[in-house]
Amino acid sequence: MKYIKNSFKNMVPYHSSLITDGIILNANESPYDPPKEVIDLFKKELDKVEFNRYPDMDERELASSIAKHFNVNSDNVTIGVGSDELLDCVFRAVIDKGDKVVSFSPSFSMYKVFTELVGGEFIGVYDENYKIDVDSIIKAIKDNNPKLVLICSPNNPTGEYLEEKDVRKIVESTEALVLLDLAYIDFSKYDYTRLAMEYDNVISFRTFSKAMSLPSIRCGYAISNSDNIDMINVIKAPYSVTTISQILANIAINNYDLYKNQIELIKDERKRLFVELNNLGFKVFDSEANFIFVLMDDKYNDILLQNKIYIRKFKSGIYRITIGSRIENDKLLEVLKCAKQK
Amino acid sequence: MKYIKNSFKNMVPYHSSLITDGIILNANESPYDPPKEVIDLFKKELDKVEFNRYPDMDERELASSIAKHFNVNSDNVTIGVGSDELLDCVFRAVIDKGDKVVSFSPSFSMYKVFTELVGGEFIGVYDENYKIDVDSIIKAIKDNNPKLVLICSPNNPTGEYLEEKDVRKIVESTEALVLLDLAYIDFSKYDYTRLAMEYDNVISFRTFSKAMSLPSIRCGYAISNSDNIDMINVIKAPYSVTTISQILANIAINNYDLYKNQIELIKDERKRLFVELNNLGFKVFDSEANFIFVLMDDKYNDILLQNKIYIRKFKSGIYRITIGSRIENDKLLEVLKCAKQK
Repeated sequence: MKYIKNSFKNMVPYHSSLITDGIILNANESPYDPPKEVIDLFKKELDKVEFNRYPDMDERELASSIAKHFNVNSDNVTIGVGSDELLDCVFRAVIDKGDKVVSFSPSFSMYKVFTELVGGEFIGVYDENYKIDVDSIIKAIKDNNPKLVLICSPNNPTGEYLEEKDVRKIVESTEALVLLDLAYIDFSKYDYTRLAMEYDNVISFRTFSKAMSLPSIRCGYAISNSDNIDMINVIKAPYSVTTISQILANIAINNYDLYKNQIELIKDERKRLFVELNNLGFKVFDSEANFIFVLMDDKYNDILLQNKIYIRKFKSGIYRITIGSRIENDKLLEVLKCAKQK
Repeated sequence: MKYIKNSFKNMVPYHSSLITDGIILNANESPYDPPKEVIDLFKKELDKVEFNRYPDMDERELASSIAKHFNVNSDNVTIGVGSDELLDCVFRAVIDKGDKVVSFSPSFSMYKVFTELVGGEFIGVYDENYKIDVDSIIKAIKDNNPKLVLICSPNNPTGEYLEEKDVRKIVESTEALVLLDLAYIDFSKYDYTRLAMEYDNVISFRTFSKAMSLPSIRCGYAISNSDNIDMINVIKAPYSVTTISQILANIAINNYDLYKNQIELIKDERKRLFVELNNLGFKVFDSEANFIFVLMDDKYNDILLQNKIYIRKFKSGIYRITIGSRIENDKLLEVLKCAKQK
């Protein structure tokens, strides 16, 4: 890449194959469409869309619905192209060349990418048992004096849920800004998004891509005090969230209760999958998300692929399986059971 | 903003009021909806959308249609959240702290914002007659040795169209990467998007927001050699363009001919507006875009506002009027005529 700056010379563009056939359990998507009522309401709104006009750059209606849902004010909310755009904005706003960022390892892979894009140094606190060790995190923060701390809970890809008291412990241990990525919190026992309203140094990030079944519309949001929200808005591109995404997300958040049944189904299936995979002799990890972290020999993945069942491989022997529908999970288990018996 | 880095301390979040009533001539939007056939085809596709799946991150179908439209290959195309996202990616990829960027002044205001976000230095070549002086641009390039040169043609907000030979002259004068922002080129006499395929150091940027009547979907694209496209893709966020935006844009580009009538109507109205505003004694500038640059006393804007007619003010006495529908333009002219007679 002739014109790219020297510090980026080694980067490579990331591409992803498009899978349209088979059982797709590799992207932490919901196996369910949004509730029919949500889609019906959307189709009714569609006739009112002015396609020839820019979206509302301040996403007023959606921000107001989100604020209502979390009992905060509209100026405590900002909306982006997935929570990814908003996370990236914070990295751009806060990190200067050489500044440090502390997170877990493994965690959401984009944290490292965001850090590198702004010339920061990423420190991922690794635990050989794939557990989050709060004391190690706090030690890494003390040792490195980072500008940002990233907490993904439940953690992607391990599924581990950090108890609220542990989050507080980390937040209170540092003056750094703590980004609380709660993409999967709807699948957990307790939602602590509102911690961001208690501490100056916390921003919570949420998304419509997981429990809300709407990754297609690329819509996420951040909640914090208005000073932190202003900081994101300084960097955020104007008009990034499409009109249709704003409309659909607004209907979804206003009908959150309609999703409860789907979420419970996924949690039930998670429990079943955990037990069954464990019975098959795989090392599985407790999860409070819509996926399960599994250690298994690569040969099982090969057999799944032969059956057009797609799970996410991280490294040799390390996998993440998204919870599918009951039928999809049955098929997955059936293939793995057969493979075990061979 | 407590956590923002020092170099950004003076930045302020930009907000825009939401106008839903009156005659909106301030955002260079088309006064026309996309052709009915485009919307009808979209509604047919809608039932096939898998809302619970991520978009195709490589936008294969849309990239292929755009490639076909311009007679290039798919790897000469990348797609973003408006051309804004793609321009920002190039700034992030190329500009290190202190690197220089040369463009016209006035031109699209985001170029300066993108430069500042990456710590670059923006040099806007100003001409007191609001004309683009090619020799001055080339001199500024020689004097400053920039990493990026931005050419917006037709230029926003002046409407001036740069002849192809002048673009070539600038491109050939420099080793810097030249970004050719052609957001309004559909309204011009000749489209030179394909210059990007002739020169290593040119990327052309296009959008669905203007002549395609689709600012609501936030979709733009870049065309260049695959090396430059790879560079953008290294920085570009994965999955930024929504599924629905990809579908609608794809239908629009495949039905480009259906837009020709709208484009001609806008060009006719531009001609009429130019003559009439000139007759009213305002200083107007030749435009090859869907707007006209006008020098007029602020009192006329006040009167327009009283009549809920919204045009874009840059500074005292300096305005940009988007070409509306015939009825909208009649109303604008009527109000200005009355105001003149007072």
